[in-house]
Amino acid sequence: MATKHLFLLPGDGIGPEAMAEVKKLISAMNAKLGSGFVTDEGLVGGCAFDAHGAAISDADMEKAMAADAVLFGAVGGPKWDAVPYEVRPEAGLLRLRKDMELFANLRPAICYPALAASSSLKQEVVEGLDILIVRELTGGVYFGEPKQIIDLGNGQKRGIDTQVYDTFEIERISGVAFELARTRKNHVTSMEKRNVMKSGVLWNEVVTQTHKARYSDVKLDHMLADAGGMQLVRWPKQFDVIVTDNLFGDMLSDIAAMLTGSIGMLPSASLGAPDAKTKKRKALYEPVHGSAPDIAGKGIANPIAMIASFAMCLRYSFGMVDEADKLEGAIAAVLDQGLRTKDIFSPGMTEVGTVEMGDAIIAKF
Amino acid sequence: MATKHLFLLPGDGIGPEAMAEVKKLISAMNAKLGSGFVTDEGLVGGCAFDAHGAAISDADMEKAMAADAVLFGAVGGPKWDAVPYEVRPEAGLLRLRKDMELFANLRPAICYPALAASSSLKQEVVEGLDILIVRELTGGVYFGEPKQIIDLGNGQKRGIDTQVYDTFEIERISGVAFELARTRKNHVTSMEKRNVMKSGVLWNEVVTQTHKARYSDVKLDHMLADAGGMQLVRWPKQFDVIVTDNLFGDMLSDIAAMLTGSIGMLPSASLGAPDAKTKKRKALYEPVHGSAPDIAGKGIANPIAMIASFAMCLRYSFGMVDEADKLEGAIAAVLDQGLRTKDIFSPGMTEVGTVEMGDAIIAKF
Ligand SMILES: CC(C)[C@H](C(=O)O)[C@@H](O)C(=O)O
Ligand SMILES: CC(C)[C@H](C(=O)O)[C@@H](O)C(=O)O
Repeated sequence: MATKHLFLLPGDGIGPEAMAEVKKLISAMNAKLGSGFVTDEGLVGGCAFDAHGAAISDADMEKAMAADAVLFGAVGGPKWDAVPYEVRPEAGLLRLRKDMELFANLRPAICYPALAASSSLKQEVVEGLDILIVRELTGGVYFGEPKQIIDLGNGQKRGIDTQVYDTFEIERISGVAFELARTRKNHVTSMEKRNVMKSGVLWNEVVTQTHKARYSDVKLDHMLADAGGMQLVRWPKQFDVIVTDNLFGDMLSDIAAMLTGSIGMLPSASLGAPDAKTKKRKALYEPVHGSAPDIAGKGIANPIAMIASFAMCLRYSFGMVDEADKLEGAIAAVLDQGLRTKDIFSPGMTEVGTVEMGDAIIAKF
Repeated sequence: MATKHLFLLPGDGIGPEAMAEVKKLISAMNAKLGSGFVTDEGLVGGCAFDAHGAAISDADMEKAMAADAVLFGAVGGPKWDAVPYEVRPEAGLLRLRKDMELFANLRPAICYPALAASSSLKQEVVEGLDILIVRELTGGVYFGEPKQIIDLGNGQKRGIDTQVYDTFEIERISGVAFELARTRKNHVTSMEKRNVMKSGVLWNEVVTQTHKARYSDVKLDHMLADAGGMQLVRWPKQFDVIVTDNLFGDMLSDIAAMLTGSIGMLPSASLGAPDAKTKKRKALYEPVHGSAPDIAGKGIANPIAMIASFAMCLRYSFGMVDEADKLEGAIAAVLDQGLRTKDIFSPGMTEVGTVEMGDAIIAKF
């Protein structure tokens, strides 16, 4: 099999612990299946700042750009709360997204049957839930200029951020959503605030046109983002694919994640456009959870979101659909077996640590 | 008693039906208690556009500015989906907020014991819930300039919105939150995205300073807005008062509202600064629900949010605390009695229409 280059960025907090389980999995796949993964590793976030004063070094950025896929852990922690804005841990992640042009962020919110009871929502509301949030990731208020704090004198400052969306950005992200909907329940809901935001007016217009021109076989609904947030809480199963902008996507995907009972379970994929020649997409895979500094180093972090992110990597970057299915099946199997890390523990189950959970999944794989 | 001038703007959809119940209540209070309410009525939203081509006329704006308080129903509906952006129904509400300088939007999310079971969340998660979202209402991305769509040629357009916050705006809204927290559980959580937005950095800084300078007796926490959304869904009772910006407040208050089991129940108050001389605040009271065009005119809309908004009006604009308590008690009493409009109906309860619900509350008052 061809060599597959993975660049690993474990980051801060529980990132390295979760990544360690994926490393074991990669070794096992190479040994047992000859999968041909070659890995290299770099620094991102607070640890990168500590090492060389930037949230990611240029050298590591180059490696990320050259890899077939990047696996990302998590960044941040109280240790770096006071570092300058430009080199704060999150800046590393934002640079990766922007420089690699990872405009399509796929965030599945799936409720594992074994965990349905641990959601704060009623079991019938979330059982069997399977929605996919397609979030625009390289535009909007995250990157628009001006973005600054101005000193107005007299003790007054002004903080400014700019939400900007161009037609082509909305077109390409909605294209991704419609394509993915065709492989699912064929239903897209687009969310914006067109009643307040001009970018929302344009968003609505371009999604509608893209639908009409190329995807009229897919069912399309529009919802105001605030109403969409409410509907997610009220009856999430009404949705299949949700497409929305960077900031609304940040909020809505976290809420969707929480519905499922544990954010420690959920993976994400961030994809670029297919290369004109090779058809390959740049890609980064990361768990939805953050760095959880309060539990870092204790060996109790849940590695499932990181492992499930690697399953998405197998599926989207290497077309290893069978292996991805098998890995997702292994996760479901250990949950059915009653294994639980602390964050998803409930009475009657067996509490295990990060390493045991990783080992159990690899054993079932 | 002194004359109390109320300006009523029922608006579109179910707005007029809900407002009709408040009008009955006002008449009853004048007749029975000599409360001295004088009402005038105007048009806002789609009906105002139909009548004179604007979402609110200058004449009605003047009346709103002069009144002791404005009662607002709801605006919008599919009939006006295609009207120009500048005169869309929502523009009437946004102009009222901006011209009256109603910077402080108070949105209580209270779970009525009788309705705890009808939430999509588990009963133990929402039972007894009582949080107050304090949303900044005259700044941020709602009003910042530039706000426009530019034609770039080649079939490309650019949609731009601008998030702007000045120190004084953050200071005054956090002051309101701290003051209100002192009358409650003395705990404020401030939410922003300081890891991505410069306005979030400033927000965080000013809230921290305001706390230190004037409200250090109140417990203050900071949370990223996306994490805040998750925590609202996971365990909402951890919050007392949440203070946040216009756009995050829009999303978070709707989500908080949905937790309680019915958005048809929840009121809001939008307040200006106290007048230097008279100490009176300009104020507008509105239900959190929208115009619900699908059920308008059928006599089935839930008038409780509108009536509860009037209770907030009694409390905040006229200092009629006993009457406000009594009215809120009357709402709880009819719910305990088993009366339900369609939106909150559950088996074993008695389904009633808008008018019957209004009558029942007035009878208990
Ligand atoms: C870490 C932070 C910059 C990031 C974001 O806001 O996009 C995170 O919340 C996410 O959702 O991936
Ligand atoms: C109607 C709309 C403009 C408004 C808003 O976005 O503020 C509404 O959603 C609200 O929350 O009051």
